Amino acid sequence: MRTPERSVEVTQVTEWAEGCARPVQDSLAAEEPLEIRIGDTPLTVTMRTPGDDLELAAGFLLTEGIIETADQIAELRSAQSNPGVKSNVVQVELQNASFELDDLQRNFFAASSCGICGKASIEAIRRRGLRQPDPDFRIDPEILCKLPEILRSDQAVFRRTGGLHAAALFDADGELIVLREDIGRHNAVDKIVGWALLQGRLPLSRNVLLVSGRGGFEIAQKALAAGIPVLASVSAPSSLAVKLSRELGLTLVGFLRGRRFVVYAGEFRCIPAGSHGQLTPK
Amino acid sequence: MRTPERSVEVTQVTEWAEGCARPVQDSLAAEEPLEIRIGDTPLTVTMRTPGDDLELAAGFLLTEGIIETADQIAELRSAQSNPGVKSNVVQVELQNASFELDDLQRNFFAASSCGICGKASIEAIRRRGLRQPDPDFRIDPEILCKLPEILRSDQAVFRRTGGLHAAALFDADGELIVLREDIGRHNAVDKIVGWALLQGRLPLSRNVLLVSGRGGFEIAQKALAAGIPVLASVSAPSSLAVKLSRELGLTLVGFLRGRRFVVYAGEFRCIPAGSHGQLTPK
Repeated sequence: MRTPERSVEVTQVTEWAEGCARPVQDSLAAEEPLEIRIGDTPLTVTMRTPGDDLELAAGFLLTEGIIETADQIAELRSAQSNPGVKSNVVQVELQNASFELDDLQRNFFAASSCGICGKASIEAIRRRGLRQPDPDFRIDPEILCKLPEILRSDQAVFRRTGGLHAAALFDADGELIVLREDIGRHNAVDKIVGWALLQGRLPLSRNVLLVSGRGGFEIAQKALAAGIPVLASVSAPSSLAVKLSRELGLTLVGFLRGRRFVVYAGEFRCIPAGSHGQLTPK
Repeated sequence: MRTPERSVEVTQVTEWAEGCARPVQDSLAAEEPLEIRIGDTPLTVTMRTPGDDLELAAGFLLTEGIIETADQIAELRSAQSNPGVKSNVVQVELQNASFELDDLQRNFFAASSCGICGKASIEAIRRRGLRQPDPDFRIDPEILCKLPEILRSDQAVFRRTGGLHAAALFDADGELIVLREDIGRHNAVDKIVGWALLQGRLPLSRNVLLVSGRGGFEIAQKALAAGIPVLASVSAPSSLAVKLSRELGLTLVGFLRGRRFVVYAGEFRCIPAGSHGQLTPK
């Protein structure tokens, strides 16, 4: 139950309801730009909810393919480190990394002459060396169905602001390992992966990642980069997320609501043999 | 009611419900990369739902401050224009535009030495010359409350896939002018603005923009770039979106649900004088 102070801002607003307006106090999800620098060179600026900035930067570097292991980070710090002064810059010193600044953009381009397309995007992921996550991992469907409620009950900032995306990591028993919130879906996932990277827990080959929003291509890519075998969301995935998951062997679950879900890829990890067509009343 | 064929892909998936698994057909929101080129130089790649690509590219150029008027676009075309062959590249030729490639990144940086922060982000918007939208525009709160239902009933792709964000433009009478859907919230807004740009309808100074997702900084920035006076969403805004809206005079409405909403900025446009504390039963 963590609500870092910088994650929430309180302001006075006007509520209109059934013809009557009145001033009320409202808690807003904080949003501030974060610049990630490699040495002194700006790499990217992302709009994020302050808090866990070092994890966010570390996770971004890993999931975007700039680094592959924690020991490639020689140093990781907030650029203004005075206590009490908020910083919106994270500076990273790399070692043994062969990163070029326009690689981020180039990630999307295939070497082939077919030009830019979904297939080329998947090929670019494959060329990063991302492989199928642990084929032996299994998650019980009944446990899977309990995860959204656990996520909701732990989403502290969301309860106050109504405005944040969440990502949460669970083990096969449905135990919550870590939860992160952010105004940006990608950032919430990067914070989780960065946390694991800095804790020496990668690859996350025995975990399920649950995200509050939609399961798009970039979320699936980030899950694969962290070695996560099961990506679940309460909403719909995109066509390209499904293709990527099928080609690289990620289990992709959508519409996880109540005692029901839809499996878009890798059903062997979450549908026990023999449950096809078998109604098992409870 | 438009459902362009490329916006939806049908695939076979597995549904698990209460212990029983069965194969079902599912419609997925299509996601493909789109590359926008200025001449032969790649400017950006965005993951988007195919359809209305020229509008998306035109809107992106305007809302990101690369162009200010439609006549700065000398040419706008899909790079592979063979009918029947899908293209994921839009090529733009500019004229009378003083754009430099790294301006997109630089947008986020302030000239001052205070470094990167929310205030600097707002200052960067101000330096683009964006001004307060029409201060004389008014929208009746009762009409405002009807817009989400109109949006929902017209969201064709969402109904089939459950996976798309929508943006819709209305006039002061609550008439739907145009609706666009995309896997990315920003893209849905850019498609609307690009449509208006190519139709010669900018600035949209007599319109309300309703978005299905959260109202963040970048959505508010795009609304301001198009001269839209009222931005509404069914969900929560971020702190920086509220600050930007207050500083530049945009009316920002959140939690628009039923006969209730919250005004975060510019309440004069949607709260009639005299409704404070006045209960007007219907």
